[in-house]
Amino acid sequence: MCQYRRVSIEDPVTQVESCCPVTPAPLSMSQASERAALFKALADPVRLRLLALIAANSTDGACVCDLVDAFDLTQPTISHHLKILREAHLVGSERRGTWVYYWIVPDALNTVRSTLDLLGAAPAAADAT
Amino acid sequence: MCQYRRVSIEDPVTQVESCCPVTPAPLSMSQASERAALFKALADPVRLRLLALIAANSTDGACVCDLVDAFDLTQPTISHHLKILREAHLVGSERRGTWVYYWIVPDALNTVRSTLDLLGAAPAAADAT
Repeated sequence: MCQYRRVSIEDPVTQVESCCPVTPAPLSMSQASERAALFKALADPVRLRLLALIAANSTDGACVCDLVDAFDLTQPTISHHLKILREAHLVGSERRGTWVYYWIVPDALNTVRSTLDLLGAAPAAADAT
Repeated sequence: MCQYRRVSIEDPVTQVESCCPVTPAPLSMSQASERAALFKALADPVRLRLLALIAANSTDGACVCDLVDAFDLTQPTISHHLKILREAHLVGSERRGTWVYYWIVPDALNTVRSTLDLLGAAPAAADAT
């Protein structure tokens, strides 16, 4: 049972007698957990730059050799970040000869986009001030 | 100077003599850090559900009393998550009488969207397999 009573905006003294439950969030806990994991994979400046670099160079796949060369970071550090992106299914990869090549996987990015659409779908959300 | 040489995809034995630098990522380190902070604020299932709840109920602002009631979490825990969302400028808030009301701020979400557009802008990125 709701333990709160809503205060009228017009008159803070007036208590609204009925307790109005909020509209349920259109995101279950398991959905939210899955999507939060995607946001977590994106929540690092090096990983964002890696993804931007891969996106800008992935017509034929971006070589890890070029990715390492674009940062003042060691190859193990870059590989660690690429592993996180790969495990989040944000990038795909394959070995071709000596090097591993990476490309963007659009599905995971689209899931992030659809989550944002859910958060920005409120009508006149910005007009509530 | 690039320390790597690119291996030809068709013939891994053939070394391409010229070292081709990658196209620079269209995201500076400071831009990436700012945007990573936004993704970090979104990288939690409770915060995602709070945002979805606020978005679904924010025509007139969502009352913290209703938000607390929608979770099996304490008010301080919900307030902690709301503080992170507020500090990331993902939500706006104001006190009205007893309670604080929250609404979605579209600007921060649009910054996240524009970052995703940057990552998904590579032509035929998914065809590199």
